[in-house]
Amino acid sequence: MTEAAQTGAASAKPSLEQARKDYEALKAKGLKLNLTRGKPSPAQLDLSSALLALPGAGDYTAEGATDCRNYGGMQGLVEVRRLFAGVLGAPADQVVVANNSSLALMHDAIAYALLKGTCDSATPWAKHAEISFLCPVPGYDRHFSICETYGIKMIPVALAEDGPDMHEVERLVAGDASVKGMWCMPKYSNPTGAIYSAAKIERLAAMKTAAADFRIFWDNAYAVHHLTNERIEIANMLELCAKHGHANRAFVFASTSKVTLAGAGLAMFAASPANVKWLLERMTPRTIGPDKLNQLRHVRYLKDEAGIAAVMERHRALIAPKFEKVLEVFGERLAHVPHVSWTRPKGGYFITLYVPKGTAQRVVALAKEAGIELTPAGAPFPHGKDPEDRVIRIAPTFPELAEVTEAAEGVARCVVLAAAEKLQAN
Amino acid sequence: MTEAAQTGAASAKPSLEQARKDYEALKAKGLKLNLTRGKPSPAQLDLSSALLALPGAGDYTAEGATDCRNYGGMQGLVEVRRLFAGVLGAPADQVVVANNSSLALMHDAIAYALLKGTCDSATPWAKHAEISFLCPVPGYDRHFSICETYGIKMIPVALAEDGPDMHEVERLVAGDASVKGMWCMPKYSNPTGAIYSAAKIERLAAMKTAAADFRIFWDNAYAVHHLTNERIEIANMLELCAKHGHANRAFVFASTSKVTLAGAGLAMFAASPANVKWLLERMTPRTIGPDKLNQLRHVRYLKDEAGIAAVMERHRALIAPKFEKVLEVFGERLAHVPHVSWTRPKGGYFITLYVPKGTAQRVVALAKEAGIELTPAGAPFPHGKDPEDRVIRIAPTFPELAEVTEAAEGVARCVVLAAAEKLQAN
Repeated sequence: MTEAAQTGAASAKPSLEQARKDYEALKAKGLKLNLTRGKPSPAQLDLSSALLALPGAGDYTAEGATDCRNYGGMQGLVEVRRLFAGVLGAPADQVVVANNSSLALMHDAIAYALLKGTCDSATPWAKHAEISFLCPVPGYDRHFSICETYGIKMIPVALAEDGPDMHEVERLVAGDASVKGMWCMPKYSNPTGAIYSAAKIERLAAMKTAAADFRIFWDNAYAVHHLTNERIEIANMLELCAKHGHANRAFVFASTSKVTLAGAGLAMFAASPANVKWLLERMTPRTIGPDKLNQLRHVRYLKDEAGIAAVMERHRALIAPKFEKVLEVFGERLAHVPHVSWTRPKGGYFITLYVPKGTAQRVVALAKEAGIELTPAGAPFPHGKDPEDRVIRIAPTFPELAEVTEAAEGVARCVVLAAAEKLQAN
Repeated sequence: MTEAAQTGAASAKPSLEQARKDYEALKAKGLKLNLTRGKPSPAQLDLSSALLALPGAGDYTAEGATDCRNYGGMQGLVEVRRLFAGVLGAPADQVVVANNSSLALMHDAIAYALLKGTCDSATPWAKHAEISFLCPVPGYDRHFSICETYGIKMIPVALAEDGPDMHEVERLVAGDASVKGMWCMPKYSNPTGAIYSAAKIERLAAMKTAAADFRIFWDNAYAVHHLTNERIEIANMLELCAKHGHANRAFVFASTSKVTLAGAGLAMFAASPANVKWLLERMTPRTIGPDKLNQLRHVRYLKDEAGIAAVMERHRALIAPKFEKVLEVFGERLAHVPHVSWTRPKGGYFITLYVPKGTAQRVVALAKEAGIELTPAGAPFPHGKDPEDRVIRIAPTFPELAEVTEAAEGVARCVVLAAAEKLQAN
């Protein structure tokens, strides 16, 4: 391409020269910022500092005279199951509360299904030549890692703002008995903030599946993690599954990792009575019970649903300004750049930035060179491969507001440069 | 058998009539006692009551400026790995500290090996038509449950006071590549109190195995759980394995379940660098890290090896009298009964009572009818089947001393009656 040709398009395109200059200025700052993971900030963790000294001297007895210090109680304390029943959309006797990390519960549910089958399986999943999971994309990289680890084929399905492409989902599950599972983050989905509509949730519950032991991994990680005044509620997946004669279809997961303490929270599972019985049976050879003291600690601290809502409001006060700042910077710096857009999430932990096709990896590399760590491009896709190389996950919760601002400004410069380079090359 | 014949042996045998009378008197007491599981008593849990308010307000920072409240740190805090390095016989960088329950670590190591293989496996264990574990017996029922759950064939091997029958072990592992693993509780073994001799430990480390990925599950659950003044130390399994060119052979497990709080302790794994790398890789899809706050809590409370030893002395002061009482009662009541003997453990949580062949189930049933719950006869054997029906595991730690005394007296009456019935029948 000649200088003349480049100059000819100057008014419509960002100037490559200017973009380069801006980027060099960015690099010269010698930043060291990290927007990679959805971690709560220290200020958010401070909200739950009461947990550091709970349950407190002499306090170890839960309902039913349970000594929380000793072995036992596989299903978790009844009061903590009751506390989260509303969040999970299930009665307390259909809830299991485990140690930290709902990811571990999801992993274990898959490992148990592979080794032993679900309560509806004729054979352990690992005995099949091939099994597959549907993966709405963009999605959560750690879901995909579990599948990748165990050789489960991942079938990407487009995720819209109101949930997955249901025509495609219905077609795939009806026609292929190797499709044993599906990942869903129904509310404030990681990373797009998608919120599954009631209509799509009902279709997921009602659809015919070729596999009798098909399971939806309903990861409601952001159930109470609102970023606006709107407290969005989604349809009750477990009830809809039961209504449509597929009571065992959904495994519901949640955790307090982003309610109380990320590394020292509780993980939760809710499902049909048959699924709960199955999980408890599968857990029995593994452990003599969860850490009930941490459960008691959480009950003492959160108390009730209003307690959960109150702490979530305080989280919102800390993180909503960070999201707003990123959106503001993107609006100022990127609104004019063709093929660039981003999500405006109503909850959760992420903003998804869409850049021109074929430039996401370049943006991430440019940012890294300028001292800004971003989640690897492609992470929200199976095997880390974004077929269009255009999705970038932005995680603004952990850094301080000033750093978030600086990082967003920096990312914007990288996007402008990568877009200009791309235009230049085309 | 005629009355005359019975009377003829009266001086040598217990009188059946008297035994029945004594047993009826026992039943009439309407006891409700439980000697089933190796649980610490409330008084033992009280020793660690400091943990209920730890780490305490504002204390969440571990070495390396680690915020224990947040995600990460898969291997566990370096200070807690250092704290238990001596107990585990491995440097801190060869230690992994996980959430409560070393059973969960053992289960997961087997599940990972089944699904993915060990770091020395050519193929995942589940891909083999059959795999087997050697099971020294009497042994720990929960080890055997894991094998049973996953269809792993269990091959019993006789356990003597100084460890397993090594001729048999060496023969089996050398001749059969399907033998992938072996359970060992090398110190104060559950339930016999066996202590593996240095010679046997070295043979375990040195022996030739047909399977290149053979693993010894070295469950050192009672590493610091002495019942006498003798602080028995056993040979260092990991060092001996390395010395004999089998560095990856042993997975070492321990926990604080019976040091601090049974339901809210820490589980630990120690092994060769390659095994540690393998475990951490296998854990990575499962979790973003353990509950580091509970690790910090334990470091603050136990402080150092002397701290561990100090709390174990206090445990001993509480439980040794219970063991002594059982031994005293058995000595008084059972010394004269033919084919009855019992172990005098120097540590751990159990006494093993050997009753006449074919009477263990009867003793447990009689005890139950009299309100004394015992571990099911056969529990210390694969599939719960004691081929000679003569082993009973006695767990005296949980009840109060007075109850332990009453339970031991009751069990003795049941043994005397069952033995008399047996003699009568012969």
